[in-house]
Amino acid sequence: MQELRIAIVGHRFMGRAHSNAWNQVCRFFDPCVKPVMQVACGRDEKDLAAFARRWGWAEIETDWQRLLKRDDIDAIDIATPTFLHAEMAIAAAEAGKHIFCEKPFANTLAEGEAMLAAAEKAGVVHYLNHNYRRCPAVLLAKKMIDEGELGEIYHWRGAYQQSWLLNPQHPLDWKLKKATAAAGPLWDLGSHAIDLAHFLVGEFAEIDCRAKRFITERPLAEDPSRTGQVEVECAALMTGEFKNGALATIETTRYATGRRNRHTFEIYGSKGAITWDMEDMNRLQFFSGADPEDRRGFRDILVTERSHEYVGAWWPPGHIIGYEHAFVHAAIDFLNACAKGGSVEPNFHDGVKSLKVLEAAAKSMESGRRIGL
Amino acid sequence: MQELRIAIVGHRFMGRAHSNAWNQVCRFFDPCVKPVMQVACGRDEKDLAAFARRWGWAEIETDWQRLLKRDDIDAIDIATPTFLHAEMAIAAAEAGKHIFCEKPFANTLAEGEAMLAAAEKAGVVHYLNHNYRRCPAVLLAKKMIDEGELGEIYHWRGAYQQSWLLNPQHPLDWKLKKATAAAGPLWDLGSHAIDLAHFLVGEFAEIDCRAKRFITERPLAEDPSRTGQVEVECAALMTGEFKNGALATIETTRYATGRRNRHTFEIYGSKGAITWDMEDMNRLQFFSGADPEDRRGFRDILVTERSHEYVGAWWPPGHIIGYEHAFVHAAIDFLNACAKGGSVEPNFHDGVKSLKVLEAAAKSMESGRRIGL
Amino acid sequence: MQELRIAIVGHRFMGRAHSNAWNQVCRFFDPCVKPVMQVACGRDEKDLAAFARRWGWAEIETDWQRLLKRDDIDAIDIATPTFLHAEMAIAAAEAGKHIFCEKPFANTLAEGEAMLAAAEKAGVVHYLNHNYRRCPAVLLAKKMIDEGELGEIYHWRGAYQQSWLLNPQHPLDWKLKKATAAAGPLWDLGSHAIDLAHFLVGEFAEIDCRAKRFITERPLAEDPSRTGQVEVECAALMTGEFKNGALATIETTRYATGRRNRHTFEIYGSKGAITWDMEDMNRLQFFSGADPEDRRGFRDILVTERSHEYVGAWWPPGHIIGYEHAFVHAAIDFLNACAKGGSVEPNFHDGVKSLKVLEAAAKSMESGRRIGL
Amino acid sequence: MQELRIAIVGHRFMGRAHSNAWNQVCRFFDPCVKPVMQVACGRDEKDLAAFARRWGWAEIETDWQRLLKRDDIDAIDIATPTFLHAEMAIAAAEAGKHIFCEKPFANTLAEGEAMLAAAEKAGVVHYLNHNYRRCPAVLLAKKMIDEGELGEIYHWRGAYQQSWLLNPQHPLDWKLKKATAAAGPLWDLGSHAIDLAHFLVGEFAEIDCRAKRFITERPLAEDPSRTGQVEVECAALMTGEFKNGALATIETTRYATGRRNRHTFEIYGSKGAITWDMEDMNRLQFFSGADPEDRRGFRDILVTERSHEYVGAWWPPGHIIGYEHAFVHAAIDFLNACAKGGSVEPNFHDGVKSLKVLEAAAKSMESGRRIGL
Repeated sequence: MQELRIAIVGHRFMGRAHSNAWNQVCRFFDPCVKPVMQVACGRDEKDLAAFARRWGWAEIETDWQRLLKRDDIDAIDIATPTFLHAEMAIAAAEAGKHIFCEKPFANTLAEGEAMLAAAEKAGVVHYLNHNYRRCPAVLLAKKMIDEGELGEIYHWRGAYQQSWLLNPQHPLDWKLKKATAAAGPLWDLGSHAIDLAHFLVGEFAEIDCRAKRFITERPLAEDPSRTGQVEVECAALMTGEFKNGALATIETTRYATGRRNRHTFEIYGSKGAITWDMEDMNRLQFFSGADPEDRRGFRDILVTERSHEYVGAWWPPGHIIGYEHAFVHAAIDFLNACAKGGSVEPNFHDGVKSLKVLEAAAKSMESGRRIGL
Repeated sequence: MQELRIAIVGHRFMGRAHSNAWNQVCRFFDPCVKPVMQVACGRDEKDLAAFARRWGWAEIETDWQRLLKRDDIDAIDIATPTFLHAEMAIAAAEAGKHIFCEKPFANTLAEGEAMLAAAEKAGVVHYLNHNYRRCPAVLLAKKMIDEGELGEIYHWRGAYQQSWLLNPQHPLDWKLKKATAAAGPLWDLGSHAIDLAHFLVGEFAEIDCRAKRFITERPLAEDPSRTGQVEVECAALMTGEFKNGALATIETTRYATGRRNRHTFEIYGSKGAITWDMEDMNRLQFFSGADPEDRRGFRDILVTERSHEYVGAWWPPGHIIGYEHAFVHAAIDFLNACAKGGSVEPNFHDGVKSLKVLEAAAKSMESGRRIGL
Repeated sequence: MQELRIAIVGHRFMGRAHSNAWNQVCRFFDPCVKPVMQVACGRDEKDLAAFARRWGWAEIETDWQRLLKRDDIDAIDIATPTFLHAEMAIAAAEAGKHIFCEKPFANTLAEGEAMLAAAEKAGVVHYLNHNYRRCPAVLLAKKMIDEGELGEIYHWRGAYQQSWLLNPQHPLDWKLKKATAAAGPLWDLGSHAIDLAHFLVGEFAEIDCRAKRFITERPLAEDPSRTGQVEVECAALMTGEFKNGALATIETTRYATGRRNRHTFEIYGSKGAITWDMEDMNRLQFFSGADPEDRRGFRDILVTERSHEYVGAWWPPGHIIGYEHAFVHAAIDFLNACAKGGSVEPNFHDGVKSLKVLEAAAKSMESGRRIGL
Repeated sequence: MQELRIAIVGHRFMGRAHSNAWNQVCRFFDPCVKPVMQVACGRDEKDLAAFARRWGWAEIETDWQRLLKRDDIDAIDIATPTFLHAEMAIAAAEAGKHIFCEKPFANTLAEGEAMLAAAEKAGVVHYLNHNYRRCPAVLLAKKMIDEGELGEIYHWRGAYQQSWLLNPQHPLDWKLKKATAAAGPLWDLGSHAIDLAHFLVGEFAEIDCRAKRFITERPLAEDPSRTGQVEVECAALMTGEFKNGALATIETTRYATGRRNRHTFEIYGSKGAITWDMEDMNRLQFFSGADPEDRRGFRDILVTERSHEYVGAWWPPGHIIGYEHAFVHAAIDFLNACAKGGSVEPNFHDGVKSLKVLEAAAKSMESGRRIGL
C-alpha cells in the first residue's frame, strides 16, 4: 500500500483540524503510507465546496452513504456531531473502511458497543480521536508513570473548564439538547478527562457524579425572540476510585470564568507527582521524591526536546507547538496502523470503556448513588 | 478594661503560634486592650516551664481546671488536641472566661453544640481559630465577592493537600486514631476548607464524601516494632451544593506528594473568578470579566498594600508576611471583642455550622449517599 | 494578480519554516493572492530534491542566479545563512523580484544599506523576517502601548537566552566564525531583541555593549580531532537609552542553562507594564496602574481570543498556537503587500536601523565606550 | 557573658524591623546570649518614647553619643539614615561597642574604610545588615553553588525593582538628595544586589553603569507648593565582569510599575541554574543539568523544610515566613559572634567591598567608561 485514500465527513471545527492533520503529516513526519485527501462530504454543498478547495480535498459529496460504495476510499474520517457517529461508523466498518472517528465516541454505550463490534468484525483499523493523548507532555507523563517515577498512584485531580456558556444569550444549539449531545460537559469534556485518566492511571472501579444547570432557558438558535429549555447539565462533578485503589476527582464545566480550555490534571503517587494543563500544553510539572529533601520541587519541564515524543520532528528545542499538532501525531499513527494492518490507540475499545464510566456517571447524576463499574 | 489576662492550655505547635500572637499583637497593632500572658498550662511540667520561659508566660499550671477558679484570668486560650476542646470550653464558659479556641472545633457535632450553648449562655466571647480567614489575600477575596466583582457564584473548587503521611514509618499517633481525632484530613484539613467556603460563598444544601485508606497499618508510637490499624481515612473527597446553587468540590489529603501545606481554592462566578493558595498566601489571583475582552487575564495581586486589610501595619508594600501573622490578626480582633463586649468571627456558631457539614460528610463516607443539610 | 510565484533559496531550518508558511497561509487566511511554490534552490541536489518533494516546491534549482532570469518567479524567499543575504537580495531586487528575507538582515551595515538601496530603487516589496513581531501577544503589547496603556515608557528589560553552546563538544560551525556570522548571539539573537525594542518602544539614542567568550576553543566541524578558535562572543550585554528617554538592558547568550529559546522583555511605563516570553508565546502579562490599588496585579492574558490579531483564524479561544504560526502571519502580509503594491514591516529599513545599533554595540564591545546613534 | 545589652539608634522602618528581631530571636532560636533591649535613641523624644514602649526598650536617650559612655551597653544597633553611619559606627567602635549596622553601609568608600578600620582596631564584632543573605532560599542557593551544582558560573542577571517614585507628587525627601543619600537606587537597592552577587558569585573585576533621571523636579517635603531638583538618579543599569569570568547585569530602579520590592537574580552555570525573587522569598527555582534530558526543568523549591537553614525553627514545612524573619536570623548570628568573640558576615569588610563597586559604578555613570576594580 502506497497511499491511504480518505473521505472526511464534516467540515466545521473538527473538519478543519483533521484536514490540517492530513496536510501536515507528511511535511514533518514519514508515515509508511501517504494520505490522499479524496472526498469531503457534507450537506451544505456551497460551504462544502469552499472547504474542499481550501483544504485540498479532491472531490465533494453530499451523501455520506455513497462514499461507502466507492472502491477508491480506504478510510472514513468522521468529524460530525456525536449523534451521527454510530450509524456512520457501523456502515463504514461494514464497507471495510478504516475509521478515524472524532470524540465524544457516541451518545450511548449501546451505540458505542455496536460500533466496536462492527469494527472488530470487519477487521478495520479504528481510531478514536482523544487528541490530548498525543500531546508530548502527556506522553512524557505516561512514560514516567510507566517507568515508576510516581510509584503507587494515590490521587487523580482533574478538571476540564471552559467558559463559553457564561453569556445567557448564547443560543440553545445542538450541544445543549439531549437528543443530539446526550449530555453537557460530562460527555464533551468528561470523555476527554476520563480517557486521560484511563490512559495514565487505569480503569475505574466506581464513580459518582453531581451536576447542575445554572442557566436553564436560552434563546432558540432558530428564533432568538423565543427561549427554550437547556436540556443538559451546565457542570458535572465526579469523584471515583480506580481499580488500583487511587482516588479521582473530575470536574467539568462551561461556566468557569477566565478558563478558556483548561484541561488539567494533578497526579500524586507514593514517589512523585505530575501536573499538566492544556492551556500550557508544552509544559509538564514533575515532582520527584527521589530528589534530595532540600532541593525538591515541581520541575517545570518544557517538553520540546528531541528526546520527547513527536516534538523533535517539528522545531528546535524551546520552540513550542500548538493545539493542532496533536492531531498530526494521531494521523501518523493511524496511517501506519492502516499500512501495517495493526491497531492504534485510543480506539473503539477505549471509547466503550469511557462510555461505561460516562453512563454510570449520568446514572449517578440522577440517582445520587455511587455506581460500581 | 485595660488588660486581658490570658491562660493558655497546650504548648506544642499551636501553643507556640498562639503565644507568638499574644506577644506580637501590641507591637504592630493597637488593640483596645493589652493581653497579659498570665499562665501556661500543660501536663508535662518540665516542658511547660521551658515553654513559659521562652514565650513569656508569667506562671505555669498543670491542672487546667484550677485556671477556671482564678479571678485573675479573663480568657482561656485552648490550644490542645481536639478531643479535649469540649470539656475545656464548656467549663471555661461556665467560669465566665472568654475563649480563644483552636480548630478543629470538636470531635462531634453534639460536643460542638454543647460548647456553643455554654458560651452563649455565659455571654462570653468565643473565637474559633480558622486563621486562614485573616490572611489579607482571603480578606480581599471576601471584599471583592461582597462587592459583586464575581457576580453570581457557580463554582468552588477547593483542595487542602499535604504529604506528611507518605512515609509508611510515620507512627500511629493521635491524629490517626478515631477516638482522639474523630477523622483524618476530613476533620483536620476539611474543617478549614469548609470554613473558608462558608465565609466566602455561603452555607451548604447538600454534601457527599468519598474516602480511602492508602496505608492501613503503621508502627505504634509507643513501640515501633509493632504495628496497629490506621483508624481514620487518608484522604477524603467531597462534592456538594451550596444553598445559593453553587457547586463545590473539596479534596483533602495527606498523601499529595510535593504539596506541603497547599490549601487552595478556585471560585468562579458569572462576572469574575478568584484563586488562592496558602503556600503563596500573600497573593490572590483575580479574573475580571469587566476587563476588555482582549486584555483579560488572571491578575496576580501581591496583597501587601496599605489598602489591604491588616498587612499595612506590618511592612511597606512588597514585603510579604508569613504563616503566623494571621494568628496575630485574630488576636487583635479577639482582644477588641473582649474589651468592647462584642463578638468575633469565626466563632462557635461557625464551628457548629462546619461540624454539621463534616458529620454529614462522614455519614456519606460510610453510606455512599448524598446528605442534605 | 492572482498568484505570487515564489522561489526559495535555502532548505534547512528556515527553509522548512518558510515552506510551511507558504503551505498554510491559504488554509487559515485569505490573502489577496495565492502563493505558488515554484522553485526550491540549494546546492546539495539530493537533499534539495527531497526537501522540494516534502514541502511541495514544483521544481528545484542549484544555481540561485538562474532564478533571477526567469519570468515565472515573482518573489525570492531568502532562507540562507546571513553572509549570503546581501548578494542575493541585491541581485533579486535588480531583477525586480519581491524579497522575503530571513534575519539577521546582513553581516554589516554597509551590506544592509546596499540591500535597502537596491530594493528601494527597484520598487520591490522587501520584508525582513523578524517573526516575533507577529506573535499575537506581541501585537497586543504594541496595541496597548499605542493606546497609551503604559503611559510614558521608562524601562525595557530584555533578554534572549539559549543554552545550545553549553556542550564544549559542539563543533566550530559557521555561527561561530566571524566571516560567516559577523558576531555571536549579538547578531543572531540581538537582532531580534533590537527589532522588538524598535517596534515597541522606538529608536535608540545611545548603546553600549560588553561581551565575553566563555569557551574559546572547539572541535572543528570538518575534523573533530582538532580544535579551532571560537571567533565570536558567547554572550553580549547591552545597555542603552532610547531617543524618548527610556532605558534599556538587553542580554543575549547561548550559555543560559535551562533556557532553550527564552526571548523575554519587560516594559515599564508611567501607567502600566508588560512582560512577555517567547517560551510562553501565547501569553502576555499586563499590569495596569488604572486598576484600583487593592486589586492591581500582572494579568496573565491568554492571547487566543477572536479579538486578538491573527489568532482567531486558527482555533477557538484557549487553543494555543506554536512557533511556526508567526511565519504564516508574515506570509499573509507579504502576499497582500505584493498584490497591492504596498509595503510590509519589518523591512529593509528596519534591518538597516537594527544594524546601526548592532554595529555600534560591536564597536562598544571592543572599545568599552558608549556609542551615540 | 549571659546577656548582650543593646542600644538602638533610629526608630523608623528599620528601628521597627531590628526591634522585632531582638524580641523574636529567643522565642524561636537559642542564641548563646540573650539580647537585652536597654536603650532606644532618637531625636524626637515623644515618638521615641512611644517606640520604646511599644517594642520593649527599657529606656530612651536623645543624644547618641551619651550611649557610648555607658558601661551597661555592649552593642550599638545603628538603624539611622546612611549619612549618619560613619560617625556613629566609628565612635561606637572606639568605645568598644559591638556594632549591628543597617545598610547601605556608608555614603562614601572613604567613610566605609574608616568604619572598618575603627572596628578592626577596636576588635569589636561588626555586622552589616544585608538581610537578604539570610533568607533560607538564598542560603540554599549559596549551598548549592558551593557544592558545585551550578558548575562554572557564566551569568548573573539581577534586578532590584520598586515603583514608589512613579507618583510625581512624592516629595523631595532625604533619599532624593545627594548629601544625605549619596545616590538613588544605585546605593539603596544596588548595595543589596552587589552584596548578593559577592556572596553567591564572587568579586567584580570591572563594572560600568548607566543612569537616568525620569522625573527631575519634585515638591519640597517642607513646602509642597514649591519644587526642587531631584539630585540622584531614578534608575541605574550596571553590567560587569566578575574576577572568575562570569558576566553580570544589575538593574536598579524605583520606576518599575507593578514591582513593589522585586529583588531578583538569575544565575546560570555550566551545570545548572538558579533564580530567586524577594517578592516570593520562600521559593527558589533550580535547574539541574544532571537531570535526564527529557525530564529537566526549573524546580520550584518551597524552602520551608527542616533541612533548610533557619526556617525549620519557625513552623512546619509548607508554612512560609515573611520579610522580617531574615532580620531574626541575623540577630542570632550577631549574638553568637558577640558571645563567642567571633565574627559574622556580611560585615564591614563586605561593606567596603561593595562600596568599591558602587563608587566605580557612580564614576562610570558620569564618565561613560568601564571602571576596573
